[in-house]
This record gives sequence, structure tokens and C-alpha cells, in this order.
Amino acid sequence: MDRRDFVSGAAAGAAGAALAGCGPSTEGGGEAANVQPQQNVRWNLASSFPQSLDTIFDAANILAERVKQLTGGRFQIQTYQAGELFPAFEVLSNVQAGAVEMGHSASYYFKGKDPALIFGGGMELLRELFAKFNVRNLPGGNTGIQMGGWFRNPIQGLEGLQGLRMRIPGFGGEVMSKLGVNVQNLSGGEIYPALERGAIDAVEWVGPYDDQKLGFQEIVKNYYYPGWWEPGPALTFYVNQSAWEGLPQTYQHALEAAAAEANVRTLARYDARNPQALKELVDAGVKLRRFPDEIMRRAETATEDLLRSQSSGALYDKIYESYRNWRQTEQRWFATAEQAFANYAYQGVQLSNPG
Amino acid sequence: MDRRDFVSGAAAGAAGAALAGCGPSTEGGGEAANVQPQQNVRWNLASSFPQSLDTIFDAANILAERVKQLTGGRFQIQTYQAGELFPAFEVLSNVQAGAVEMGHSASYYFKGKDPALIFGGGMELLRELFAKFNVRNLPGGNTGIQMGGWFRNPIQGLEGLQGLRMRIPGFGGEVMSKLGVNVQNLSGGEIYPALERGAIDAVEWVGPYDDQKLGFQEIVKNYYYPGWWEPGPALTFYVNQSAWEGLPQTYQHALEAAAAEANVRTLARYDARNPQALKELVDAGVKLRRFPDEIMRRAETATEDLLRSQSSGALYDKIYESYRNWRQTEQRWFATAEQAFANYAYQGVQLSNPG
Repeated sequence: MDRRDFVSGAAAGAAGAALAGCGPSTEGGGEAANVQPQQNVRWNLASSFPQSLDTIFDAANILAERVKQLTGGRFQIQTYQAGELFPAFEVLSNVQAGAVEMGHSASYYFKGKDPALIFGGGMELLRELFAKFNVRNLPGGNTGIQMGGWFRNPIQGLEGLQGLRMRIPGFGGEVMSKLGVNVQNLSGGEIYPALERGAIDAVEWVGPYDDQKLGFQEIVKNYYYPGWWEPGPALTFYVNQSAWEGLPQTYQHALEAAAAEANVRTLARYDARNPQALKELVDAGVKLRRFPDEIMRRAETATEDLLRSQSSGALYDKIYESYRNWRQTEQRWFATAEQAFANYAYQGVQLSNPG
Repeated sequence: MDRRDFVSGAAAGAAGAALAGCGPSTEGGGEAANVQPQQNVRWNLASSFPQSLDTIFDAANILAERVKQLTGGRFQIQTYQAGELFPAFEVLSNVQAGAVEMGHSASYYFKGKDPALIFGGGMELLRELFAKFNVRNLPGGNTGIQMGGWFRNPIQGLEGLQGLRMRIPGFGGEVMSKLGVNVQNLSGGEIYPALERGAIDAVEWVGPYDDQKLGFQEIVKNYYYPGWWEPGPALTFYVNQSAWEGLPQTYQHALEAAAAEANVRTLARYDARNPQALKELVDAGVKLRRFPDEIMRRAETATEDLLRSQSSGALYDKIYESYRNWRQTEQRWFATAEQAFANYAYQGVQLSNPG
């Protein structure tokens, strides 16, 4: 979609409109009494992402465009990038407070509020978790596996990580810190200049498509994989619970269906955009290198230690156990037919030899 | 959803109803003149699948249920399993003729009509292909990778395939025939008795979840992987072109959104159901075995030979080239971070040693 067309169209219709979906909540599952099925509803959505991360940010636009189509234009959602309404890391609290009807974010950004927010799956348990924040959660896209990041020099084993100044936020940064890395937190726009003037030695961002746009390949050439701290990070749409309950059922269904579609289309876009970007990076002289096994093993141990020790109580423990069981059962299946096929089909297709 | 509830509910509303969506087609992209946005529409959908393949068959029910929800019950689609309205392999021709508004099938079933129908991706080119059949195609689910099938005895290299009587239909069967297999075509219900009385030596069906229900593990124990002839078979919803054009735009959007959701939910269900079934099969004494490399290599060569030689003309060639280019670019990306992560994470998780 053309975001500008949508936004200007929505703005015309929304000028001065009350937040029709934000009436008092209603009981139970029936048609909400305070909004008629044909009523116009105008919502706002605050994203934690900048428009420059276009694949992620557009998940919200895919949702908004489809909801508009499904309701004949009667339910419209205007999307705002990080900082337009609220700073990126204040999205959840503002949806919780009802200052905005919807948000779009990566829930691990908010692990300070509850460490259980780092888990991306198990819908029933996550509904229980988000209820504490007055939020109804819907799936909101996925980047697929990310890359491990850009390093000025090839990594010399675990020793090479000691004191290395690396930009890596969140839980991945906590693990890297356990491995001896000097973890730096920089926002997207600060990274390139810091890398250029030698203030940092390494950086992780997303994957080939998003990384290429920030231009790290102009400064450093060692591009490591896999991004083991984000092998498939789930994004989430947040809906204020009272706003949700104020919607006619048909509009609730429209939101659910549009979120499901935005979820898979966002991953499909990454799957389509990353391969081409990776090829261009390698053509431009970037060296692809795999993290050494000793770093992978040490990171795995540190990750499991942190996941165990940071428990916030019974619900955390339930989600963690559910996640571990699910992962074990799934891996046994995917390690069979899927992995055997991939290992056969991928023989010799790599773009350059791993270092 | 509860299929029976839906079907009986729809039947009450649909009794004697005309096929409101099947009026004469209208021009262009505007709101269709012959159906009002609030009009009731009752469609039928003929599936090529039996209800016993519940994950695949339910893709059509997910679609129908969501379309009903999105339109406040005004657009309802009644689903029929294979054989209820038409035989499995006559679904496409009946959608083409307008005898039914929708179908759900695996398009490679119809490669006799045009061999280009074996390709599962490239939406723009496939729209051009399906237009020849008076059909608008929508994505309709995926099983994920399938298993290679059940063999009475472990396979002794390529020689072991000579004259082996194996139930394997379609393009996979054509390839197996090139490898010396005596290919048998049997419908689902005929397989178990044929295996039991020794009339066949091997059979492929789908994957752990569907295979377990047919009970092959009670007779033979060697379960091979990967199902290289179906590493991710795409299913498709067919919509009769005139029926599509007769829909109000809002209903067209409802169909598109519901199909996108049914597409990904069906794959998600397989991803959730196969692992548990695989575990139960192994617990019951089934031996997991990987196809030997020499068979994989010979099958790959035979597949590429067939894909090249069966061309039906310019459109086939365009789709085949698009598929090859896409596959090469995608594999280069997935062979990097994704495969490195999987190979690390799956160490030692296999349920039993490959033979």
C-alpha cells in the first residue's frame, strides 16, 4: 500500500472525530451495546518502530488497510511511527492507560515490567500475561532469523569477545555481557557514526535488508551469523482492553483476521527481501562468517541460566515451561524431514565460505 | 470451529437460496452493480480432500467461518468434502464451468490439463495461468514438508528400488518411476488393505499426523524422510471468475483476508500436530530412516529432467524460470543464518538414529 495515501485519506475522515471505540466497556461476548455495527470508528496506533524499518513498520499499515477494506471504510486506524505520539519504549504503558487504542511493538522491549514478556509464543498463556497490562494481544509479524551482526575484525574465539564494544540491546545484550562483551546501547541513527569514529567495534541490527540501508558494509566487512538471540522474534499488536470490548463483534473479527494476515505477510516480506540484500552485500565485498561453536555453546548456557534465574513468579514459570516443552517437541520434528531436506538442497549454495 | 454447527446453520439459511454471487460479471474495480454490499450471498465450496484429512479439509472451514464473521453472517460458504458434490479430481473443471463457486485442491492434481499447474508460487504468473481456467486463485494452506513414506524393508540403495511396488501418485510417482519403482495408484482407503495383504511394498501419504491415523505403523516399521517430492506443497482455493466479479468489494476483501489466514493457520496446525504424532510413532517402535544420498541425487536429476521436458509453452517456461531464480536466491539466504542456527540447535534432538 501507499502509506501516504492511506494516512491522508484517514486523516480527512478522522478530523475531529471522537475516539468512538473508547466508550465504557461492556460485559461478555455479545454485540457491544455502545457501538452499532455500522458505526464509524477511528483509532490510533502507536508503533515502537521508525518508518525507516519499513518492513516492520508496514505490518501496522497492512493491518490498518485490511481493516478499512473489511469494514467498507467504517473502521479506520491511523498509524504513527515511534516518537510521533510516544517514544518507542512507552508504547505498552500508553495502550495500557488508554491514551491510544493500539500499539505495535516487540514485547521484549518491556521485560523490565515483567521478564515473562520476552517469550513470544503460547497464545493462551500470553493472553493471561497481557491481561495484567489491560491489553488484548494479537500476533504482529516476525522478522525471521536475524544476523549476528557486523564486526570490525574476525572474532578470535571467546577471548576475542573480552571487552569488545558491541551495540546490542535487550536480552541478547545481557547474554553477551555474560560472555565478556562491553555492551553498548545506541539508537538506530547513532550507530553508523559511532562505528565510523571507532567508538564501537561491533553492532547488531536486524538482517541483510534492514542492515544494508544503514550502510554498515561501508565501514566493516565481517558479517556474522546466526543471530542466535533472535532466531524468530515475534512482534505483537496491543489493543487496549476497553477499546476492544467497545467494538462491534464484526470489527473485532476484522482486527483478528487483519492481524493474522499482517503477521504472515511481514515474515513473507522479510523472506523475499533478505535474500536479494544478502547477495548485494556479498557482491560488495562483505565476508559472511559463522560464530564459532565455543561461542554458541557458551551463549546457550548463559541464556538458559538467565531464563531460569530471572523468574518473576508462577506465571513466568508456566510460560517458560510451556516454551521449553514446545521447543523440544517441535525441534524433534523439524530436525527430521525438514532439516534433512535443507541440508541436502543447500549443498554448495552458500554465497561465500564461512570464516 | 465446529463444522456441524456451521453446516447446519448455513443449511438453514441457504435452503432454496439462489446462488446470489453468480450473476453476470461486472466491469472493472468498482462496487459490483448486481449485488448490494449488505446482500446475502450463499456459496458452495467443493474440496478435493476427504474430511478424514482433517487439517487440510479444515482450511476450507477456517475460510468459511472467517468470511461469515467478517460479513456479519451475510456471506456464507458451505464446504463439501471430496465426493459429496464432485469427485476429487473434477473440482477444477466444475469451478471453471461455474457449477460451484469455489474449490479447494492441490493444483498438481490437474497437471494433465497443463503441466504448469505443478508450480506452487509466483502469484502474478499463477493468476495468468488460472485465468485460462476462468478461476481466481487464492493461497489455501500448506502441509509443510512431508515424509518419504513407509517401506516394508530398509532400502538397499538404488538397486533396492528396482521393481519395488510403491503407492505414490502424481509427479513424485513419475520421478520414482524413472528410478525403477513400480508405481501404484491407490486411494486413501485402499492403501492399508493392500499393504496388509502384501500387494504393495511401500506407500507415501502425507506426514506423521495424517499417516498415523491410517495405521501403516501397525504393518511396516521403516519410515523414510525427507519427502523430497513435497517439501512444502501449496494448496489453493479456486474462485469462479464470474462469481468473484459478482461480489461486492467488501466481500472480495473478506475472501482474500480469510484465505490468507486459512493459509497460515493450516501450516501452523501441521507444525503443531506432526511433532506429537512423530513422537508417538517412534514410541510405538517405528524406525526413522533417511533416504540414501545416491537416491536423493538420482531423484533430483530425474526431477529437473522432467521439469525441463514437459514444458507446455511460453507461460510454463516463464513460471519455471521464475521458480528456479526464486529458489536459488532464497536458498542462499536460508542456507546462511537459518541453517546454521538449526544445525546448532538440533544437535542430538533426533528421536532415533537415522538408518
